[in-house]
Amino acid sequence: MTVQANAPPLPLAITLGEPAGIGPDIILSAWLQAGLDARRRGRLPTFVVVGDGELMTSRARKLGLTVPIRCVASAAEAASVFADALPVLHRPLARPPHAGHPTPANAPAVVAAIEEAVSLVETAAAALVTGPVHKKTLYDGGFAFPGHTEFLAALSGPDVRPVMMLAGAALRVVPVTVHRPLRAAVAELSTEAIVFAGNVTAAALVRDFAIAVPRLAVAGLNPHAGEDGALGREEPDIIAPAVARLQASGIHAVGPVPPDALFTPAMRDRYDAALCMYHDQALIPLKALDFDGGVNVTLGLPFVRTSPDHGTALDIAGTGAARPDSLVAAMRLASAMAARRAGRAPA
Amino acid sequence: MTVQANAPPLPLAITLGEPAGIGPDIILSAWLQAGLDARRRGRLPTFVVVGDGELMTSRARKLGLTVPIRCVASAAEAASVFADALPVLHRPLARPPHAGHPTPANAPAVVAAIEEAVSLVETAAAALVTGPVHKKTLYDGGFAFPGHTEFLAALSGPDVRPVMMLAGAALRVVPVTVHRPLRAAVAELSTEAIVFAGNVTAAALVRDFAIAVPRLAVAGLNPHAGEDGALGREEPDIIAPAVARLQASGIHAVGPVPPDALFTPAMRDRYDAALCMYHDQALIPLKALDFDGGVNVTLGLPFVRTSPDHGTALDIAGTGAARPDSLVAAMRLASAMAARRAGRAPA
Repeated sequence: MTVQANAPPLPLAITLGEPAGIGPDIILSAWLQAGLDARRRGRLPTFVVVGDGELMTSRARKLGLTVPIRCVASAAEAASVFADALPVLHRPLARPPHAGHPTPANAPAVVAAIEEAVSLVETAAAALVTGPVHKKTLYDGGFAFPGHTEFLAALSGPDVRPVMMLAGAALRVVPVTVHRPLRAAVAELSTEAIVFAGNVTAAALVRDFAIAVPRLAVAGLNPHAGEDGALGREEPDIIAPAVARLQASGIHAVGPVPPDALFTPAMRDRYDAALCMYHDQALIPLKALDFDGGVNVTLGLPFVRTSPDHGTALDIAGTGAARPDSLVAAMRLASAMAARRAGRAPA
Repeated sequence: MTVQANAPPLPLAITLGEPAGIGPDIILSAWLQAGLDARRRGRLPTFVVVGDGELMTSRARKLGLTVPIRCVASAAEAASVFADALPVLHRPLARPPHAGHPTPANAPAVVAAIEEAVSLVETAAAALVTGPVHKKTLYDGGFAFPGHTEFLAALSGPDVRPVMMLAGAALRVVPVTVHRPLRAAVAELSTEAIVFAGNVTAAALVRDFAIAVPRLAVAGLNPHAGEDGALGREEPDIIAPAVARLQASGIHAVGPVPPDALFTPAMRDRYDAALCMYHDQALIPLKALDFDGGVNVTLGLPFVRTSPDHGTALDIAGTGAARPDSLVAAMRLASAMAARRAGRAPA
């Protein structure tokens, strides 16, 4: 049961990610779209940027966008400002960034903004939406985590193990293995990892997506799901036992499903999320069906975090070519997830 | 330049495949659709069935379809019959089949029909369209080839090496490795196999698809195409050299392309066929985008061969639930390919 709270929802905390990338561009566009949406088709969630306000002003000028930037002292102040200006918790970078040319000199500020945004979530902010970071620049600047998501998990606690979901209009997918060479992903696939991802996914579908009895479909690994072992042993040895364990714990799970059958329109109607055995098994159908609207959701964190399903796109930063669709979808989804988690109906 | 020949095009030779499967059902439906099409939206190609006429009569009765079956003495006779009846080169089975229950006793007749149909192609028939076979039943009946396609290649000559293409309305894909466990497909991937598939595909796109300068996109194997070797070495070691060799031979080829980017709408506009490194990399996007209309095309044979992109569907044989869409698409494509190969404009 959902109830309407009296207080307005907290704003979303937004990080720029790589300041030389398209993060600032799409945040500016999203704010403009929020203004249009307020009049036309339902309000975009209120948000506050944790980052360099000077950069936002200069990028808006470069793009020819009329976006007033307002430095605020707290996330709480953002709501009253948002209708008239893009609120920013101003955290200056070491150097003014040049669009398209990241510098490791700014990596500490990029990382600090993420840390601060995490500290805001669940007290001063409803959820976290992160702009895309440029890994190599962060590494060159001393960053020691494999990626954004692992960093957020580490900030959240010692035993936090994140699970990645990609959510599009047509499909939700959860890759059990993520950024590994395909050869290694096959070698490392385990029953335990599938069961863990299945449990986290099912719990998130209940709590954050308001699906009372989630249906999971578990993909096979091999062509035709291995044809009863003739085309690979992972299905009987690893995947089927995982499906059985999920079922034994009361989760509605089916599989292993032949991978090429799993994403047909008829099959997509029969599950709420597909557990995929490797990165591209999940990402290929998601992007084929729904390129602009995909949202990256990190499950298993103590707070709601989403991000657009694209990179820094350095080649088009500052040009006006970047579309905010995925960021806007990430904002809408984060807001809805946070509302459900807080026991409110999504806006 | 294409010219209109004076003689009517030869009929397509159609095999039933597994007689207890849906092959007979969808051929009957296709003939009915041909009758509708002749009046409504352009003629389906004329075709002749190589198989058991009694089976076709009894299956039509079982399905409640009014399809007159006419036994003909030659493929040439089919054209004059086709408007009024479904022409069959009657080759009796050993036993009347029961829909849904294949018997190895009929395997020799199934195989003989394929052999005869191959012998007709390019003299008495324009192209071959094969119904789905049931591999296990053929094996139990003594069939010694890995599959349908390998058998057709063996019938075609000692050095014939087939390449599989799946063609849908949205996408053409060519898997470089096919029915192998994923682990083996990764281990066996070779520059030579990619170059071979690329050459055969490019030649077929020119000759059979009338694409003067075909554009090939070559997929990577690993997530993000390996991120410059950080997520796998197959891209620099195996795939990029293959792309370079294809380019050096004058073929317009690009890649390795990140697999999840390759099938987005914007990317699909930029190539005529995608070379894929393993079965599901090709089949997942094809079936996600275009489940009912996919056609299996065998490139590299001396004749045109297509087949529907589905199996025997034993569970729905004889029930009326099987849809002929993929078979009809296979017929249309075979006819168009044969016409182009013969120097005629497709009907």
